[in-house]
Amino acid sequence: MNDILSSTPAVSSEAGTQTLDTLSTPALILDRDRMDRNLTRLKGLMAGHGVTLRPHLKTAKSIDAARRIFPDGPGPITVSTLAEAEYFAREGGFTDITYAVGLDPNKALRAAQIHAGGVDLKVTLDTPEQAPALGAAGKATGSCPAAFIEVDCDGHRGGIAPDDPQLIVVAQALKTAGVPLAGVLTHAGESYSLHDPEALAAAAEAERAAAVDAANALRRAGFDCPIVSVGSTPTAHFARDLTGVTEVRAGVFMFFDLVMHGIGVCKTDDLAISVLTTVIGKKPEKGWILVDAGWMALSRDRGTSNQAVDQGYGMVCDLAGKPYADLIVDQASQEHGILALRAGSSATLPDLPIGARVRILPNHACATGAQHAGYNVVADGKPDIVAYWPRMRGW
Amino acid sequence: MNDILSSTPAVSSEAGTQTLDTLSTPALILDRDRMDRNLTRLKGLMAGHGVTLRPHLKTAKSIDAARRIFPDGPGPITVSTLAEAEYFAREGGFTDITYAVGLDPNKALRAAQIHAGGVDLKVTLDTPEQAPALGAAGKATGSCPAAFIEVDCDGHRGGIAPDDPQLIVVAQALKTAGVPLAGVLTHAGESYSLHDPEALAAAAEAERAAAVDAANALRRAGFDCPIVSVGSTPTAHFARDLTGVTEVRAGVFMFFDLVMHGIGVCKTDDLAISVLTTVIGKKPEKGWILVDAGWMALSRDRGTSNQAVDQGYGMVCDLAGKPYADLIVDQASQEHGILALRAGSSATLPDLPIGARVRILPNHACATGAQHAGYNVVADGKPDIVAYWPRMRGW
Repeated sequence: MNDILSSTPAVSSEAGTQTLDTLSTPALILDRDRMDRNLTRLKGLMAGHGVTLRPHLKTAKSIDAARRIFPDGPGPITVSTLAEAEYFAREGGFTDITYAVGLDPNKALRAAQIHAGGVDLKVTLDTPEQAPALGAAGKATGSCPAAFIEVDCDGHRGGIAPDDPQLIVVAQALKTAGVPLAGVLTHAGESYSLHDPEALAAAAEAERAAAVDAANALRRAGFDCPIVSVGSTPTAHFARDLTGVTEVRAGVFMFFDLVMHGIGVCKTDDLAISVLTTVIGKKPEKGWILVDAGWMALSRDRGTSNQAVDQGYGMVCDLAGKPYADLIVDQASQEHGILALRAGSSATLPDLPIGARVRILPNHACATGAQHAGYNVVADGKPDIVAYWPRMRGW
Repeated sequence: MNDILSSTPAVSSEAGTQTLDTLSTPALILDRDRMDRNLTRLKGLMAGHGVTLRPHLKTAKSIDAARRIFPDGPGPITVSTLAEAEYFAREGGFTDITYAVGLDPNKALRAAQIHAGGVDLKVTLDTPEQAPALGAAGKATGSCPAAFIEVDCDGHRGGIAPDDPQLIVVAQALKTAGVPLAGVLTHAGESYSLHDPEALAAAAEAERAAAVDAANALRRAGFDCPIVSVGSTPTAHFARDLTGVTEVRAGVFMFFDLVMHGIGVCKTDDLAISVLTTVIGKKPEKGWILVDAGWMALSRDRGTSNQAVDQGYGMVCDLAGKPYADLIVDQASQEHGILALRAGSSATLPDLPIGARVRILPNHACATGAQHAGYNVVADGKPDIVAYWPRMRGW
């Protein structure tokens, strides 16, 4: 066995020596300038509304990406797993963290231990059954996370309707268990199915109204409800009025993706991540170009399949990031992608030789990112890889 | 910051102290007995045909799983990335490896370096353009991988039709470049769309015939063609005659999944991997149970959506592995799954309290496995986690 077999596996981490022309493919590319522009845009919108932006780091899962927003912590940030909370606290001094997934009672002690470690971790729940475990964990550690009550604004997933008396039942259960009430939290997940600006603005208003109504119902019942937290990337960008809201959560806005493009939240020029891939075969008689990015590199996400324009498994661009007319990843197996022109297109299939490289814009940044160990970062419109940013994973 | 924040992230790796009742969720579970049974079944079938089984380790990506077949190496095995080849060579002494994805010329030197390290690595290609880079890499290292010519047996993806004169052109290009011809290799990917045993047997025969015809065409043109390699999990199980074939590749057979169940290759009792998850919410008015396994734990694969029975994002079982009647993962967001009865079902939604645990059988074992860092292994029908087997990832 020679050196190459006794060394660690090859990773795309040779920042400073690699470029888009030399990196081993498939590889995840992050355009830092586009990400910074996306951050600036939403920060500006939120500043205009006078509300706090609490970015959801479930998309990026990277301390280096998080530092582009908060160079030295402490947040505020949102996470989707306790492992993310531990990672961002440990790696970057983030101490203002909301865990926005309904609490498994078996995880209450772990949450309380994070809180006891100096992190203002807040958790989320929507049943009275979840309160006692959290209260007991808080007593065991001497440090209890505050809890948000999840509000249902659009029937998308979990949460309690603002006019449901169950809201007060849960608040009372928290009080009985000795758990501080952080406030109310909602997510307009149904906004992902929209594309009309008026409908998106209406979804944002419905999200705002549900959260504010729930907060007021709790206040009328005698509970403090300091935080009114709403958020999804589409509603955050289309909201016209956020009166009564104290903070907005959004995640995919940092990178954007083809689903967000189909909704109308961004242009393709705003998409900050892409998958670099190499041509490894051709089937001219079928109009196919085979590349080495299959679903393992792109994910199985077909989020644009229900939109007006189905992008297959992704939109194909040249190395500079310019889309080829109507060229998409039409099919994907584990390590093969098949590029083809969109059905009905009158465009010409580009003549890409074996060994040529292209970049794929993904349907869903969260899902595509999760297929990779880290980001190869480009900047200033140049092909050089200026940094490698690892991602965390797991629960 | 206390200890929990300065330690490494929590992983499901406490084999020996954990059980299905205590493991943090979501977690990937592997039933070792089912896997062993699946291995024994296909090994027996191949022995009956007198051909070599060359398992495709792109599904398991685990040295511990590979050792259940070959305790001390050296294979034969199949891989889908060069990183897998390096991993299995380094970790387990595997030295008989076929890389069954069309070669990116930029990876030729890396392949030749693996070969120079004492691994009989064979690569795959289907154009004359790929040959010179491989030949040059072989000259640079003094050690050239042999190449398979990929044959197209069903129009599924890449490869050359057995009667296409291009087959001889590629063989000649290899000879000119000084690259040994390993033989021909094909994959009946279209068998995944079948479910009738007669059609599956016909697909297996078409796969066999295409490979043998291509080998004979090469031999008639004066080329040695020692290996005739075919394979997909459905055709491997439905083949009636493998005359002229020397080896069969299959991957997902080790674990099986709901797609394979829909094709008719296995029973649900054969499925060796599942995702352990916890109930974190309910919407009784909608017939929903919310769990902490979303697409991050299950993958976005919807491979059963085109089959006679659509299993959503997976079939729900109790902790012992027994399916609940008609209960599936109907929807998935990143860290939430929504369990619901299949449309039109007359079954009753089980009464699962907050904190209860269930196991999800996946659509596609390759895709679900890839979402996890490793396997929590159970055996002997007991809930104890007897081992933790890490997975490798990347390219």
